[in-house]
Amino acid sequence: MVDSAVIGHAIAEKLTAARAASRTLSTLTTVQKNAALAAIARDLTTNAEQIIAANELDSERGRVGGMAEGLQDRLRLTHARIEQLSEAVREIIELPDPVGTMVRGAVLPNGLSVSQVRVPFGVIGAIYEARPNVTIDIAALALKSGNAVVLRGGSAAEESNRVLVEIIQAALRSVGVEPTAVQTVDEFGRGGAQALMRARGFVDVLIPRGSAQLIQTVVDESTVPVIETGAGVVHVFLDESADETTAIEIVHNAKVQRPSVCNALETLLVHEAAAERLIPGVLTKLAEAGVTIHADERTRELFPECLVAGDDAWGVEHLSLDIAVRVVADLDAAIDHITTYSTKHTESIITNDLANADRFLAEVDSAVVMVNASTRFTDGAEFGFGAEVGISTQKLHARGPMGLPELTSTKWVVRGSGQVRG
Amino acid sequence: MVDSAVIGHAIAEKLTAARAASRTLSTLTTVQKNAALAAIARDLTTNAEQIIAANELDSERGRVGGMAEGLQDRLRLTHARIEQLSEAVREIIELPDPVGTMVRGAVLPNGLSVSQVRVPFGVIGAIYEARPNVTIDIAALALKSGNAVVLRGGSAAEESNRVLVEIIQAALRSVGVEPTAVQTVDEFGRGGAQALMRARGFVDVLIPRGSAQLIQTVVDESTVPVIETGAGVVHVFLDESADETTAIEIVHNAKVQRPSVCNALETLLVHEAAAERLIPGVLTKLAEAGVTIHADERTRELFPECLVAGDDAWGVEHLSLDIAVRVVADLDAAIDHITTYSTKHTESIITNDLANADRFLAEVDSAVVMVNASTRFTDGAEFGFGAEVGISTQKLHARGPMGLPELTSTKWVVRGSGQVRG
Repeated sequence: MVDSAVIGHAIAEKLTAARAASRTLSTLTTVQKNAALAAIARDLTTNAEQIIAANELDSERGRVGGMAEGLQDRLRLTHARIEQLSEAVREIIELPDPVGTMVRGAVLPNGLSVSQVRVPFGVIGAIYEARPNVTIDIAALALKSGNAVVLRGGSAAEESNRVLVEIIQAALRSVGVEPTAVQTVDEFGRGGAQALMRARGFVDVLIPRGSAQLIQTVVDESTVPVIETGAGVVHVFLDESADETTAIEIVHNAKVQRPSVCNALETLLVHEAAAERLIPGVLTKLAEAGVTIHADERTRELFPECLVAGDDAWGVEHLSLDIAVRVVADLDAAIDHITTYSTKHTESIITNDLANADRFLAEVDSAVVMVNASTRFTDGAEFGFGAEVGISTQKLHARGPMGLPELTSTKWVVRGSGQVRG
Repeated sequence: MVDSAVIGHAIAEKLTAARAASRTLSTLTTVQKNAALAAIARDLTTNAEQIIAANELDSERGRVGGMAEGLQDRLRLTHARIEQLSEAVREIIELPDPVGTMVRGAVLPNGLSVSQVRVPFGVIGAIYEARPNVTIDIAALALKSGNAVVLRGGSAAEESNRVLVEIIQAALRSVGVEPTAVQTVDEFGRGGAQALMRARGFVDVLIPRGSAQLIQTVVDESTVPVIETGAGVVHVFLDESADETTAIEIVHNAKVQRPSVCNALETLLVHEAAAERLIPGVLTKLAEAGVTIHADERTRELFPECLVAGDDAWGVEHLSLDIAVRVVADLDAAIDHITTYSTKHTESIITNDLANADRFLAEVDSAVVMVNASTRFTDGAEFGFGAEVGISTQKLHARGPMGLPELTSTKWVVRGSGQVRG
């Protein structure tokens, strides 16, 4: 199963250690895993100076290298942010442990007791960008769900991640948990990411986190099963019967409340028969909030203060205060547009027509479909999962917001007393 | 999303038609889907002569080309076998429809109603070998679960599959279902399989069925998510406390009852302290059944009528009346052997020791783990699923025997009354 020729000997050693650690992790009790998390939370706080010193090296390199302001901000760790990371780990302690949950079970007519129970995946690989908070977040979620994890963060955060992983490993050691449960392959550079993607047999599932391009690369190159998360070209459709106030409030909230995240609105579709009634009010509220509007011709007739939306305006994930607006003939045209351009993350219809609501919910093939609600609600915490592992835009294994149970597999346990098949 | 340059224009057209068909399929009622299945079952019977004529062309080609006897047998369709296929389709009519099942749901504090419901994947791709019964089986399972399916069977069954798909399409047309819900890409030869593997965006999930080599190729080359099924290097471990009669009966049943299938026993491990007591009786019963025993040195001391098991004897899926036998020091050594050589399909411990049973169930990382039961019970029908899609040996999405629900994804449906996020 284990072919170190494909991924290099040094990395294979790390992955073999991860596999060994996963065997002991899978047998830890919830109390033991929570003790490990508590030790990590504690040691993050007590080692804050060391973390900040390492992070300052990364940040300095970023500044000199001309890293964009936004990325520099995501990279930076402060005392306050480290305290938030610690707090996030403590919140994971409070979550129910999915491991051991019985999904279904029965006693068969022949007396065999058959049950399907949740078990850890084993070894999770994570490939992400220069955000040291993801290091802590993924490690804590993996540990709580009984998984070993091998991390490959962005090279721009290499010093920060190295120190964070050292602190995690020392914390694990302090409570008697195998420190190789959390490892990084950052020191192998791009080869580390390549190895994780080819490590079928070593790594049970790979989770990429970051830009659409990063995720696409992992999806294309990985032979390890991938959980695809992220990119959200999110649509709202204002149907003919949409209430004006509801339309104005939901579009504003979906676009403006936090434009940099994947559940933020990117394209607004408006029913032709409602365009004159709704567009002025909806777009005025957006313009007042500083949103740049890229609109088709019909929209610009009704609200001239827009940029021209070219053919490449649709299907764009801005993650900024930009929005594309298009008038469509009817519900079918709206669904067609969404089918063509959506990343299948979240779409919402604003309507008072029950039949149209039902058709939209049934025919739009996205992870989350909504009626009269802001797309910003697509979120693990909002759905009541406590922590969020990410938002899956694929259909296999998990779809939509993922919680801890989505970091587990299942196993069938069969207990007999000598039964044979007739 | 849809990049026809990667897969060729003609195949892209078929896959686009499949996608369109999947949109209407997803809205069919159970009654409508069952009517389509009934039409298929009927038309298989009424067109038996045409099927047999086409199959005879494939069979003749196989004979001339020197196809192995066993493969020729799997390829052959007779009146009786066609009637069995018809009957299998009618059995799928009786199964509950997974689509629309609510997995979980809640009303959030802000009044949003959130529910997770089962929906079809959309388009399923199937790559398999020269077994025309798989064509009918996969098509019927896909239709019942609301999925369109694109088939690539072995070229050795091309004539049979072409006629079978024509019959299915005519049956679908006769009840008003889009005939492109079931298509084959066999006419594109190996390019058809290649296209399915690169058709991310067109095909939602790919199911390979057949030899370990076929499955490995699909896993390595596919960018579409794959559900890995099949290969079973299945182990039974006779613990120190194993009851002799139980050991003899289970080992015999697991190896002999149907050796050609993936849940048949391939390697027997015996605790050193029980070897003298158990090996003669267990192996005598196997030898009487015509099993060829490949054994390590210690086993041959106790039961000389064995072939020598070389270093390459472990981890072999014989699918024949051959078995490898090894004496191990203890439970840990047995688990280590299984961890090294198993394909993570099914393993069983025969024991009367509760602590050892619990350790085996917890530490052996296979889809199905058993105590005192024959490994032949790993089967969808035995588990009460009605039909079986295959046995998944991966950890993502589905593990172990898969039923109709495993051919679905889920979708989150959110119903609001104007809620926005604060």
